[in-house]
Amino acid sequence: MRAYDIIYKKREGQNLNKDELEFLINGYVEGDIPDYQMSAWAMAVYFQGMDAEETANLTMLMAESGDMIDLSPIEGIKVDKHSTGGVGDTTTLVLAPLVASAGIPVAKMSGRGLGHTGGTIDKLESIPSFNTSLARDKFFDNVNQHGIAVVGQTGNLTPADKKLYALRDVTATVESIPLIASSIMSKKLAGGADAIVLDVKVGNGAFMKNFDSAKKLAEAMVAIGKEVGRDTRAYITDMNQPLGNAVGNALEVKEAIKTLKGEGPEDLTELCIELGAGMLQLAGKITDIEEGKKILRENLQNGKALDKFSEMISAQGGNAKVIEDLSLLPIAESTFEVKAEKDGYISEIKALDVGLSAMILGAGRENKESVIDLAAGLEIKKKFAAPVNKGDTLAVLHYNECDNIEEAKEKLLRAFTITEEKKDKNQLIYEIIK
Amino acid sequence: MRAYDIIYKKREGQNLNKDELEFLINGYVEGDIPDYQMSAWAMAVYFQGMDAEETANLTMLMAESGDMIDLSPIEGIKVDKHSTGGVGDTTTLVLAPLVASAGIPVAKMSGRGLGHTGGTIDKLESIPSFNTSLARDKFFDNVNQHGIAVVGQTGNLTPADKKLYALRDVTATVESIPLIASSIMSKKLAGGADAIVLDVKVGNGAFMKNFDSAKKLAEAMVAIGKEVGRDTRAYITDMNQPLGNAVGNALEVKEAIKTLKGEGPEDLTELCIELGAGMLQLAGKITDIEEGKKILRENLQNGKALDKFSEMISAQGGNAKVIEDLSLLPIAESTFEVKAEKDGYISEIKALDVGLSAMILGAGRENKESVIDLAAGLEIKKKFAAPVNKGDTLAVLHYNECDNIEEAKEKLLRAFTITEEKKDKNQLIYEIIK
Repeated sequence: MRAYDIIYKKREGQNLNKDELEFLINGYVEGDIPDYQMSAWAMAVYFQGMDAEETANLTMLMAESGDMIDLSPIEGIKVDKHSTGGVGDTTTLVLAPLVASAGIPVAKMSGRGLGHTGGTIDKLESIPSFNTSLARDKFFDNVNQHGIAVVGQTGNLTPADKKLYALRDVTATVESIPLIASSIMSKKLAGGADAIVLDVKVGNGAFMKNFDSAKKLAEAMVAIGKEVGRDTRAYITDMNQPLGNAVGNALEVKEAIKTLKGEGPEDLTELCIELGAGMLQLAGKITDIEEGKKILRENLQNGKALDKFSEMISAQGGNAKVIEDLSLLPIAESTFEVKAEKDGYISEIKALDVGLSAMILGAGRENKESVIDLAAGLEIKKKFAAPVNKGDTLAVLHYNECDNIEEAKEKLLRAFTITEEKKDKNQLIYEIIK
Repeated sequence: MRAYDIIYKKREGQNLNKDELEFLINGYVEGDIPDYQMSAWAMAVYFQGMDAEETANLTMLMAESGDMIDLSPIEGIKVDKHSTGGVGDTTTLVLAPLVASAGIPVAKMSGRGLGHTGGTIDKLESIPSFNTSLARDKFFDNVNQHGIAVVGQTGNLTPADKKLYALRDVTATVESIPLIASSIMSKKLAGGADAIVLDVKVGNGAFMKNFDSAKKLAEAMVAIGKEVGRDTRAYITDMNQPLGNAVGNALEVKEAIKTLKGEGPEDLTELCIELGAGMLQLAGKITDIEEGKKILRENLQNGKALDKFSEMISAQGGNAKVIEDLSLLPIAESTFEVKAEKDGYISEIKALDVGLSAMILGAGRENKESVIDLAAGLEIKKKFAAPVNKGDTLAVLHYNECDNIEEAKEKLLRAFTITEEKKDKNQLIYEIIK
């Protein structure tokens, strides 16, 4: 077998069989197949695509290229959740304790933020003393004992995906649906999930800018799940404005706590209820989705969800007093209110620019080596369709030292469009693919 | 400027401007742009193509990446000729002395053979003592004095093309019309030609298997010529059977001598007359193409073309007596006659298999390091549409030591298809693009 023939076959639009993909992926990880053949193959895939079977085979090969985490020491059906990334996406911080409070085990491995998108691990680290790097046994023990643990990724997970993604990133071959789908799903499979809930974000602040491509990605991932025997459900959700009001690590933890108290922003709360009910159903906890939503809504009101968050924080060495006393979270020295320049209605909030503004303030990493400021970020005060008067506060910036504060202010101000006519809100959840 | 953005732009089907191509090509030659970005770009070009201006810019950049030969010390309009390569393509050996005999200067740099296609330099080296590596001054002197010189490529010609072609060869990105066109034309431009005649071969023994792709390649090269101010004409010619009867180095020299005496195979003779007349016209020697053909036919009959070949051989240190005494050429120890297994008509000769059979006999190189046997090769005795009886000789193999003689015999026998019905011959010249 030769890499040349595999590239040629894909270039000609033919399907690659499992042996061919195995030769390619294993050869690439082992260094027998050079980057220049792999990037040519990736570009051929960009143009010719891959069918469901090919994509599933690629996914399994990438998952199996490194450690495969065995979650069987944890009882029950383990449902993982993944978001394709957005701005102010506080979901996991709320969702993990919420579904754990309903009795399904949450053994979650999360990542760090990059660019305008945040990462759950960074957010949790704004809780004093919180430990995101538990040893494997301790991780399992915590889940068995408390029903929940959220940790950073450890071990040698999906090295094939890591190597291939780094290559795609510099060869303009990222934007391929089957390659994105297999990259995401390979990590979920290596992470040991029995079932998977996917939050595929679409809009100006998401990786997928339009509904059609988001739907294709959702369908591709659900198809992979089907092929490899993991019950998978994808929610296509709106990211045309930041989710919730907070963008930034400590600010999002604060918002998560409010939401777990039942006092959170409407969109964030609704999304967590929806995704959470889906997770309960996949875990076999409920059959009727409305029943699931009811349980979760109750747990936000009766304090069970918040208690579970508190329990998790303590179990991972963090100071659970933050829940009562939000001032224990990192707080920025300075704030600045961005104000409306005219009357009208908010008709657009460019989520990407909001995310970039937060990154400039110090909340996000420009590259993997950047150090982030956990206190930095911003709070949106007027969301889509809200009426505003000139001088109203649109958002509050939080920052410590910041070299480009003027750029951050300007970018945030320009992220808002105010028009005389009121526009209809986007749906929060466009479609569910199962 | 970043290579990433250039790849992305091409992937999206946009045209690259000259600055972008310059950044890419110069960066690649200098080692600043890695192979993996270049191969992804090449695959994007495979799918998205390049327009005439892009292709011309790429061609000039590759030509200018190394030495640019200045043929101005040679008087007159220098017309170069290039064939895209076929089996038994003896054309240059005949054409060079033929057009020189009509008074236009021939300053030709040729290559060596690879795989099933032969190279003029190898063929000439089967003439005892013939020197194909003249110094630049001597090369020019010979052309000025004798009107002709044929030498191997020297100097650092088109390093960008060399590097890019080697990469394309292992990344399944060779078969892109604009990349093939710019590769060929960059070499011609670096070689200093004022005008160019292209022989674009099409058929089972050619690089281009069908007329449409051959025509596209021809049009792309003529368009480059137009963009860069070199009068260029492309002949789309048949390569569904070997050209002439001989395949192999000394055997083709023998055939060339016969053809220059006016006793050569009909197809080879006709092609040389056609291409030669085109060269005379581009050189401004004639206006009416029929007049050119008449002159060339006369020079085959009156001995002028043969004399010119003799003069060239002597001027390049070779033994011109070969012209009178063909036994001075290398002769193989053994011959074998491949015979027809049934009666009928030749309805197909797979030129590629004929070329591969000759390669197995020792006439061609499997890779650049292979040593070739100048005496080895084969002679076709029955060409397309010829009637045959069982037992007739289809071809004669010539070989010295050969490890796989049975494979060569079998491949050659299977290259011939004999059917009861007689099929119509293909045209020799399908179309002329100018």
